[in-house]
Amino acid sequence: MITISAMKWAPPFAAGSVRDYRARWILNEVGWPYRVHLVDAPELAGETYAEQQPFGQVPYMEEDGRPTLFETGAIVIDVATRADKLIPADDAERSSVLCWVIAALNSLEPALMNVAEVEFFIDDKQQREARRPSVVAFATKRLGQLDAALGERTWLVGDTFTIADLMVASVLRLADMQKMIKQLPRLVAYRERCLARPAYRQAVADQRATIAEHQQSDMRYGETEQ
Amino acid sequence: MITISAMKWAPPFAAGSVRDYRARWILNEVGWPYRVHLVDAPELAGETYAEQQPFGQVPYMEEDGRPTLFETGAIVIDVATRADKLIPADDAERSSVLCWVIAALNSLEPALMNVAEVEFFIDDKQQREARRPSVVAFATKRLGQLDAALGERTWLVGDTFTIADLMVASVLRLADMQKMIKQLPRLVAYRERCLARPAYRQAVADQRATIAEHQQSDMRYGETEQ
Ligand SMILES: N[C@@H](CCC(=O)N[C@@H](CS)C(=O)NCC(=O)O)C(=O)O
Ligand SMILES: N[C@@H](CCC(=O)N[C@@H](CS)C(=O)NCC(=O)O)C(=O)O
Repeated sequence: MITISAMKWAPPFAAGSVRDYRARWILNEVGWPYRVHLVDAPELAGETYAEQQPFGQVPYMEEDGRPTLFETGAIVIDVATRADKLIPADDAERSSVLCWVIAALNSLEPALMNVAEVEFFIDDKQQREARRPSVVAFATKRLGQLDAALGERTWLVGDTFTIADLMVASVLRLADMQKMIKQLPRLVAYRERCLARPAYRQAVADQRATIAEHQQSDMRYGETEQ
Repeated sequence: MITISAMKWAPPFAAGSVRDYRARWILNEVGWPYRVHLVDAPELAGETYAEQQPFGQVPYMEEDGRPTLFETGAIVIDVATRADKLIPADDAERSSVLCWVIAALNSLEPALMNVAEVEFFIDDKQQREARRPSVVAFATKRLGQLDAALGERTWLVGDTFTIADLMVASVLRLADMQKMIKQLPRLVAYRERCLARPAYRQAVADQRATIAEHQQSDMRYGETEQ
C-alpha cells in the first residue's frame, strides 16, 4: 500500500494547490490506490518527519519495502516508470520527456515562484514594487519560450499526454496570478487541456475535501479553540 | 558521436562555472568522448538554437539518431542510466538517487540562485540589502537540512559516489560566495570529496581552456575589435 503525506490544513487560497496534488494526480492517472498521512506544521518541522522528507515539506510517498520518496518530480517519474504509463515506450521520446520534466522544475518553476514570492510573501510594499518588474519580465520570457517550443502541438512529446505535460501544467498553475500567461492563448489552451484530465480534477477535489474536513477540528492556525 | 554546446566566452569569474561543466563531468565519469559546439550570445538568442535548447541556454547534448537533450539534470540522468554508471543497480537505491537529483534542482538550487542573484545581479544597493537577509536565511536553512540528511555518511545514497552526489555537489558550488556553507564543516568536506573527482577536475579545466582560447579572438563583449 502507498501512503503520501499531505497538509491537514491550508489557508483557503491554497486549498487545491498544496503540492501533494501532484502525487495524487500521477497516482490517479496510473490507477494506484493510496492512503494519506495528514501532517500539521509542528510535525513538518520535526526530526521524525525529516527522515522521510529532508526539507520538511509535503508530499513524501511511502510504500512497503521501498525507500520513502520525496520531491514531486521524483515521485512522478518513479510512479510513471514503474506503472509504464504516461511515459513513452520509445527510448528517444522517453529522454525528451525527462528533459521537459526537469525543465518544469529547474527552468520554469523557479521563475514563476519568484513572481509568487513578490505577490504573496514580500510584506514590504516598496521592496515588492521594486522587485516585481524584473521577476515578471523573466517569467514572461520563460513562458514565451515554452509557448514557442510547444508551437501548434497538442502535447509536448509525441501524440499523447505524458508526465512532461503533467509536470509543466502543474508548474503553469503558478502563472495564474499575473496576466503573464493570458497573452499566450495557445499556452492557456494547453494548460486547460492538461488540467481537464479526470485524474487531476479528482486529485484537487480530494485535497480540498481533506482540508475542508479538518478546517473545523484543527484551529492552531491563529483561531481560538472552540 | 556526442556534441555538447558550451559558451565561447564568459567573464573571468564565470570561467569554470558555466553549466556545461556538468555535462562534461558526467561524460568524463562514464568515459564517453564528446565534441563541443561553441556558442556566443547572438547564437544563444536565435531561433535555430531554440530548436535544440528551448530556453536559449547551454548546454544541450546532441547525439546521432537521438533527440537533442537539454537541462543538465536530464543529461546527467540520461547518460548515467544508459552507461549504467554512477547509478545503483538496486531499484530502491535508484529511486533514492532520483529524489536527490531532483532535490538538488528544485529545492537547493533555486534557494542558492536567489542568493547569487543578490550578490551579482541586483544593481540597486538598497534593494540588494533589503533582500539579502531573507534569501540568505532560506538558503542557510536548506543547507542545514541537507547537512542533517547527509549526517556522517560519505555519499548520499549507498556506499559509492552517484549522480545524486554529482548534482548536489554541483549545486553546492553556488554556496561559495557566502559564509553560509562554512558553518557546516561536514558539508564542506562532502563537497570537497565530490569535487576531487578527476572527471570533475578535467571538466572544469577543459571549460577554462576553451574560454581562455577564445578570450582573444571574440571581442564582441564590450571590447573593441583589434
Ligand atoms: N520541491 C518540493 C516542494 C514541495 C513544497 O513546496 N511543499 C510545500 C507545500 S506546497 C510545503 O510543504 N511547505 C511547507 C514548508 O516548506 O514548511 C516538491 O516538489 O516536492
Ligand atoms: N536549467 C538549466 C540552466 C542552464 C544555464 O543556466 N545556462 C546558463 C549558463 S550557466 C546560460 O546558458 N545562460 C545564458 C542565458 O540564459 O541567456 C540547466 O541546468 O541546463
